[in-house]
Amino acid sequence: MVNLKNLEENPKGTQVDLVEFLEHLNFNDKGLIPVIAQDFQTKEVLMLAWMNSKSIRYTLDEGQVCYFSRSRQSYWRKGEESGHTQIMKQMNVDCDGDSILLMVEQKGPACHTNRRSCFYFQVDGTSVSISSDPLK
Amino acid sequence: MVNLKNLEENPKGTQVDLVEFLEHLNFNDKGLIPVIAQDFQTKEVLMLAWMNSKSIRYTLDEGQVCYFSRSRQSYWRKGEESGHTQIMKQMNVDCDGDSILLMVEQKGPACHTNRRSCFYFQVDGTSVSISSDPLK
Repeated sequence: MVNLKNLEENPKGTQVDLVEFLEHLNFNDKGLIPVIAQDFQTKEVLMLAWMNSKSIRYTLDEGQVCYFSRSRQSYWRKGEESGHTQIMKQMNVDCDGDSILLMVEQKGPACHTNRRSCFYFQVDGTSVSISSDPLK
Repeated sequence: MVNLKNLEENPKGTQVDLVEFLEHLNFNDKGLIPVIAQDFQTKEVLMLAWMNSKSIRYTLDEGQVCYFSRSRQSYWRKGEESGHTQIMKQMNVDCDGDSILLMVEQKGPACHTNRRSCFYFQVDGTSVSISSDPLK
């Protein structure tokens, strides 16, 4: 049986079964886990969204990133309306099994404001400034 | 009054007051917000942790990253016990004001397992493999 705590001392290359591993993810009380999407080439962090157990499965099976929308309470295949899809290049999980890092190929802007990244509010001393323009 | 939604169309360089901006962050029902820590030089994503309003304030005031530990329910100045501190280089907030991206200078490993990054479980087809060794 997989126990993430027991694997901490294991060396690089140690393998565990995917299905068993996924059963040990730590979802929050709403059954969700935070997911960071990072551009696989530039390494820019594009967004943070949420997945449930099934959307992880969809993403792994289909290769196209599928989140769970908290506002709509439904599956959200990124880009299904906008065309700004994310192709999964790599999935990593953290030590506690309570967050996911996805390397993605992002088509167009990741943000609903049409900016490349959602993280465009930059704290700068005593003010906050917008650090990018929407893509044309 | 700052309203993140109303700022979406604003161009790069638009400035808003920091104190007002922070009042519009969207904390969860436990008063917390997820925070991504990214190495400011290599751009490697190191960890995901949580902050409350005061730990954001501490981090901005002190320059040393201070999270809020959900397991201990207390402030957690990263590295206060291990010496593996994080110095904040830049703070960005996303479009919805519900997640934070920190660029940090990480001293030593970020992970409690002594690995550089917490995201060392790499999904690889039908298995998961450990992708890094603890630092010596």
